Amino acid sequence: MPQAAIADPLSQADNAAHAARLLIRGGGHADHTAGMAPGHVQANLAILPAEYAQEFQTFCQLNPKPCPILAVGEVGSPYLPSLGQDIDLRTDLSGYRVFENGVEIDDTADVSKYWRDDLVSFPLGCSYSFEEALIQDGLPLRHMERNECVAMYVTNIDTKPAGRFHGKMVVSMRPMKPADAIRAIQITTRFPNVHGAPVHIGHPESIGIDDLEKPVFGGAPPRMKDDEIPVFWACGVTPQVVVEQAKPSFCITHRPGCMLITDLKNSQLAIL
Amino acid sequence: MPQAAIADPLSQADNAAHAARLLIRGGGHADHTAGMAPGHVQANLAILPAEYAQEFQTFCQLNPKPCPILAVGEVGSPYLPSLGQDIDLRTDLSGYRVFENGVEIDDTADVSKYWRDDLVSFPLGCSYSFEEALIQDGLPLRHMERNECVAMYVTNIDTKPAGRFHGKMVVSMRPMKPADAIRAIQITTRFPNVHGAPVHIGHPESIGIDDLEKPVFGGAPPRMKDDEIPVFWACGVTPQVVVEQAKPSFCITHRPGCMLITDLKNSQLAIL
Repeated sequence: MPQAAIADPLSQADNAAHAARLLIRGGGHADHTAGMAPGHVQANLAILPAEYAQEFQTFCQLNPKPCPILAVGEVGSPYLPSLGQDIDLRTDLSGYRVFENGVEIDDTADVSKYWRDDLVSFPLGCSYSFEEALIQDGLPLRHMERNECVAMYVTNIDTKPAGRFHGKMVVSMRPMKPADAIRAIQITTRFPNVHGAPVHIGHPESIGIDDLEKPVFGGAPPRMKDDEIPVFWACGVTPQVVVEQAKPSFCITHRPGCMLITDLKNSQLAIL
Repeated sequence: MPQAAIADPLSQADNAAHAARLLIRGGGHADHTAGMAPGHVQANLAILPAEYAQEFQTFCQLNPKPCPILAVGEVGSPYLPSLGQDIDLRTDLSGYRVFENGVEIDDTADVSKYWRDDLVSFPLGCSYSFEEALIQDGLPLRHMERNECVAMYVTNIDTKPAGRFHGKMVVSMRPMKPADAIRAIQITTRFPNVHGAPVHIGHPESIGIDDLEKPVFGGAPPRMKDDEIPVFWACGVTPQVVVEQAKPSFCITHRPGCMLITDLKNSQLAIL
């Protein structure tokens, strides 16, 4: 098992991501991570035993829009040096969910006691990154203005199956004025590692959504305005739902909203 | 006045654009130019006296989406060597309209007798170029499948005025399924010199269009389907309308559909 590198305190001195992880690791922050370490990539996390890892990795590679892989941990290692020299996946998230055979057995801020030599970690891109780019461009995001959870929906779009992993795509939706929607498509096209361009615009019923004002997974009703169109992005909840349906013998995920904070900058994910 | 370069017959041997111009110049083709010299850029054309040229050039630079400038002719020159060594703007279009004080005085295939030492030529990008890119990507275009003229509309969007040139933006509209609309936004973003990304999607009434099935300028009704959204691009008819409204003392334009065929390849206009 590889050792975590000793972080250079000088080079880390101005690293807000490192500081946020230290705070969480020390028990000083138990809440969600939205707004922490601005500019840094936050990631969804799925941790699976090796016997599921290759199938899940294939599922992600077949479905890069809902499941953009940012890195893959070494078998048995709780470290992810490519995303942050000091990252320890056992303690650096403010909340985890632990599953056995698809049943949640714990909701905790420290999974050290569950760690096993056969676990493989998959940090996946998260919409926080592209939302930052949209806001920096001056595009209003209603759910953030209202401090609400973004609206999410289960669609009739089939993901591409891989072994035991399969299911429908989950999407998030942001209402936008048409010119803003065009600009948002351009901006998010530049970020394929954090869900990329939208998967749908304008016609919810075409992707199996009957009522936009009834989102799922705790999202707030978007309250669409007459001059707006709905813009749908593939959502990182998709792999969570798929993993829950596959009922692996063991699994650890982040608690919704409690993301892995990495040293990567959102701007570094832009391909153009 | 610069001389047209003598074209090298060997280097021109496989140049379909050069061949198309020779055919038109010799009177062998009097119809529209859609589909001629595939892969080559075709251009809208506006020719104005020098006393209007700088104002019009500024109008185009302020409104690059409807009026993308591909080149600017030298004062008095009927040649455009940057778009084709042998181009002669007096004879190389299959149709021209000639205006005096805003009134059309001739519709002809040869404007040699009207040429003046103070004329400045403005070839402007045309949607043929981005339509080729859309078709090559597999996106269906209904008006082309039906061999109809694309639907066009006058919007309530003000262009940015420059001196005597001002007016509302004209747009063309192509109905698309939502996923195709997203892809079309990505593709046309790569082509800023031929109208670029759409200016609007989804809500015609927001830009002053009351009835999509009643286009103007001879466009065919698009006959929208329930699972489609309307995608609007800035249209090269905008500068024509603006010039007609400004009523310059003298003006030559292409006849609609009878474009300048250039040596440029559409692919060379892509910025990415």
